[in-house]
Amino acid sequence: MVKIGALEAGGTKMVLAVYTLEGEELERLTLPTLTPQQTMPQMVDFFRAHAVDALGVGSFGPLDLDPRSPTYGAITSTPKLPWRGYPLLRELLGGRDIPAAIDTDVNAAVLAEVVRGAAQGLDSAVYVTVGTGIGGGVYVNGATVRGLMHPELGHMLVKPHPDDPNPRGVCPYHASCLEGLAAGPAIAARVGGDARELPDGHPTFDIEAYYLAQMCANLVLTLSPQRILLGGGVMQRAVLFDKVRRQTAALLNGYVNQPAITERIEDYIVPPALFPVSGLVGAYLLGLYAYQRRV
Amino acid sequence: MVKIGALEAGGTKMVLAVYTLEGEELERLTLPTLTPQQTMPQMVDFFRAHAVDALGVGSFGPLDLDPRSPTYGAITSTPKLPWRGYPLLRELLGGRDIPAAIDTDVNAAVLAEVVRGAAQGLDSAVYVTVGTGIGGGVYVNGATVRGLMHPELGHMLVKPHPDDPNPRGVCPYHASCLEGLAAGPAIAARVGGDARELPDGHPTFDIEAYYLAQMCANLVLTLSPQRILLGGGVMQRAVLFDKVRRQTAALLNGYVNQPAITERIEDYIVPPALFPVSGLVGAYLLGLYAYQRRV
Repeated sequence: MVKIGALEAGGTKMVLAVYTLEGEELERLTLPTLTPQQTMPQMVDFFRAHAVDALGVGSFGPLDLDPRSPTYGAITSTPKLPWRGYPLLRELLGGRDIPAAIDTDVNAAVLAEVVRGAAQGLDSAVYVTVGTGIGGGVYVNGATVRGLMHPELGHMLVKPHPDDPNPRGVCPYHASCLEGLAAGPAIAARVGGDARELPDGHPTFDIEAYYLAQMCANLVLTLSPQRILLGGGVMQRAVLFDKVRRQTAALLNGYVNQPAITERIEDYIVPPALFPVSGLVGAYLLGLYAYQRRV
Repeated sequence: MVKIGALEAGGTKMVLAVYTLEGEELERLTLPTLTPQQTMPQMVDFFRAHAVDALGVGSFGPLDLDPRSPTYGAITSTPKLPWRGYPLLRELLGGRDIPAAIDTDVNAAVLAEVVRGAAQGLDSAVYVTVGTGIGGGVYVNGATVRGLMHPELGHMLVKPHPDDPNPRGVCPYHASCLEGLAAGPAIAARVGGDARELPDGHPTFDIEAYYLAQMCANLVLTLSPQRILLGGGVMQRAVLFDKVRRQTAALLNGYVNQPAITERIEDYIVPPALFPVSGLVGAYLLGLYAYQRRV
């Protein structure tokens, strides 16, 4: 039986799985993300023990995704210092010559959602995760977007909300970027505590929705995706969806005169269907496609 | 001899041409854009008289670009009222069954630049024209981006410059969008006259560059293109290129740690090579590809 290995490499945990060719999950292992020295041996052992025939990886980044590069599959300038410059894909393979592929965790997630999730059958989609950080994966013209590097949607520059007490945000790199104003730590800094304890009607969720709506509006204007999926811990606050939808439509103000925006935005900005395993399923698909290209 | 017809349909003029299969230009006709009743007969006659074997069109929009739509090739919600809802592609063909294709003028332009211009051989690029309006074409994963509609980069939301006397901008749809703050009319409103008479050192060009740099930074973060091409009348002020490059790098602040941005941005944000005929050459390519698909 052919077995496809999948890894979703996150900043706090590593999720490893083994799938059949058809996508049935056979095994799963979750490990905390420590240093490469501490975490890698178990991961290499897991895939070796299960004798996977191909490997797909969706990883936190930034990553070197240029197949022509000598450091293809390495993590590059991450703030997680032990992983900076780490040749993740090469070390995972441990010298085995099996088909393998890597993409960002969020690109893997959008791929999974297009193939078998909330964007199934669409030509284009964006998947954004809003949690301790903000990241986005983009699928267009039959593949995820890599380009110069890969999308880093989280750091899109946005306009501060007039009522935001901290309009610069908390990003060390950028004055008023999305992640600095709308990720979990920004919300916590704004309300001075754990936002999960606040009621749905708290004004901080209107401010939050304003930032996410700017992102959605700019995505519509630059990428024109057929659907936008919002996932991650912050989006588990369901009231945000309606607020983001309404503010996105208000910001676009009828300019993009498409029924998907003007009439049915509740079907346009939606939760992912595969959360929380979108990225893991995407990693399986990356491994599957690598396997299919080889045979 | 096979002949490919090409039309670049603009808001002020229509440029029609006939090319050989190999791309040699045989004829060109320029007409003012009046109403369909006034302008279309000459255009239909031109392509009919030259007996073109295929037709490619790059047009102002918004356009219906969904080949499955009954109104494929029509201009949709344009403010140019006589052209609103006009079935441009169908009327151009005048009942002839020849291969034909249509895309936005800026998508046609980016296609031309990728195939034989300033982005030759790259996997992804964005072409932005900054003139009386701002429009952008996007090429990624082997094709231009259409999606829900098509990119409308000009209306990306941006942060007002602190020294801008008119921070809302002049767009009737959006408070502080790019076109409302950085297109020709916005500059004229800001300086109270014709900006072409101002010296390079005038502070309005720093404000202008700040807006275009926000666009470039957000493009890097969302689309990660391998090159950004800036054309159009406003960009004929050459000093803007250095200002936009410097402010783009400053806004990204090292976060996108790619030599193309951090070391060689002068090769990353560049003028188009085919200006002012990028769109026309792109229209020829659209016609050529439609012809090649048919035979």
